[in-house]
Amino acid sequence: MPVPAEFDRLRVVLVATRNPLNIGAAARAMSNFGFLHLRVVNPYEVAFREARSAVGASALLANAEQYKSVADAVADCTLVVGTTARRHRELHHPLRRLELGARLIRKQLAMSQVALLFGSEKIGLSNEALSHCNWLMRIPTREEHGSMNLGQAVAVCLYELIRDSKTVRQLEKPVAATAAEVERITVVLLEALRASGYLHSNPAASARGKEKDKVRRLVRRLNLQADDAEVWLGMFRQILWKRRSQK
Amino acid sequence: MPVPAEFDRLRVVLVATRNPLNIGAAARAMSNFGFLHLRVVNPYEVAFREARSAVGASALLANAEQYKSVADAVADCTLVVGTTARRHRELHHPLRRLELGARLIRKQLAMSQVALLFGSEKIGLSNEALSHCNWLMRIPTREEHGSMNLGQAVAVCLYELIRDSKTVRQLEKPVAATAAEVERITVVLLEALRASGYLHSNPAASARGKEKDKVRRLVRRLNLQADDAEVWLGMFRQILWKRRSQK
Repeated sequence: MPVPAEFDRLRVVLVATRNPLNIGAAARAMSNFGFLHLRVVNPYEVAFREARSAVGASALLANAEQYKSVADAVADCTLVVGTTARRHRELHHPLRRLELGARLIRKQLAMSQVALLFGSEKIGLSNEALSHCNWLMRIPTREEHGSMNLGQAVAVCLYELIRDSKTVRQLEKPVAATAAEVERITVVLLEALRASGYLHSNPAASARGKEKDKVRRLVRRLNLQADDAEVWLGMFRQILWKRRSQK
Repeated sequence: MPVPAEFDRLRVVLVATRNPLNIGAAARAMSNFGFLHLRVVNPYEVAFREARSAVGASALLANAEQYKSVADAVADCTLVVGTTARRHRELHHPLRRLELGARLIRKQLAMSQVALLFGSEKIGLSNEALSHCNWLMRIPTREEHGSMNLGQAVAVCLYELIRDSKTVRQLEKPVAATAAEVERITVVLLEALRASGYLHSNPAASARGKEKDKVRRLVRRLNLQADDAEVWLGMFRQILWKRRSQK
């Protein structure tokens, strides 16, 4: 099977992974299905070192990029998709079944980079990590035993991406904003909201985190186009500047 | 997701598995997707014991059935499907891409039991094991790195089985012969062929194994119905008896 060029635009992002075997397994499935770009965010250091130095560890692992934050790891992507085993629990995000989600990812990959996030073995993706996502995707597992092994979840998601890859088509759609652009907007908006008194300017740390996550999700749901993003950023900056200059 | 009754008819058969982690991973994926019947054939004993006694090992593992031969493990199934990472290499078997193969398995599951075989980590399924299969199924991996991790291969195959399970329908087709019936025919046929001089009656052990495998595949490709199988068995028995009684 020749690897379609689109696949080169996927970034598989492992967030806070603890087990080196799982990092290795994820890399192996990526190589099996032709997705060669791995990013890790705050892995358990020992685990990442072990995985990289394991016998037979691939070039893919050696080339894996390490990031300090989810924001940095997805900055150059126009679509950020989180994976989860949860169903209803306050997700605050559109939740799509794997098959539909993969179709949307393939469409986006025809144009620009997409990040696919996998959380840690124990807790999955944190609310902070989830707040960077445009939407979430769920593998249709049983209710009685929903949580998959990380390496297996990666394998199944990537399989679904390649399963029907002939349907990948170039679509004529406006270019979506990158995650970095969207995050810039989020940051300025948060400052503006605090400066404006809409958000408490000095809340407890935990409340502050929740507020940020909520706003971040809000901005993601806009699915901004690149052109529009620039306009929005300018607008928020202006609001913020105005507010500050009045103090 | 409610588990369709059909899923209860699948037997996942791990042949000569060596790594307990892989047995555990296979069991976990089975539980995730609602396939609860595991069979193991000649596992590396230590591995199987370890997997069974692992913390959090499931009822599924505790209930796994152990067999001495592939023939015994698939005896009550009407369709036996092997998995492989190979492409062309003299497979002597119809090779189907996972998506089509899974569709055929689902159809059969609507009526009777199906065995899905996975080979060992190092070599996959042996030619002897493959010779028990009606056909083979391949996950569409890259040519450069085709061989998947066992636990991940199980997860991907089972995912493909559940992906579109609404298409499972009761089909009005004659009942297929069980593997045990087909194997009985094979045994009698082999005796008849040796007795008849078509096969050497006393070949070297290795040649004998190859001959057996070849005939076994030949019989599998007939895709016998249960009624017909009885007739064929009677015919071959008669041939054999006649031949012997003439000596």
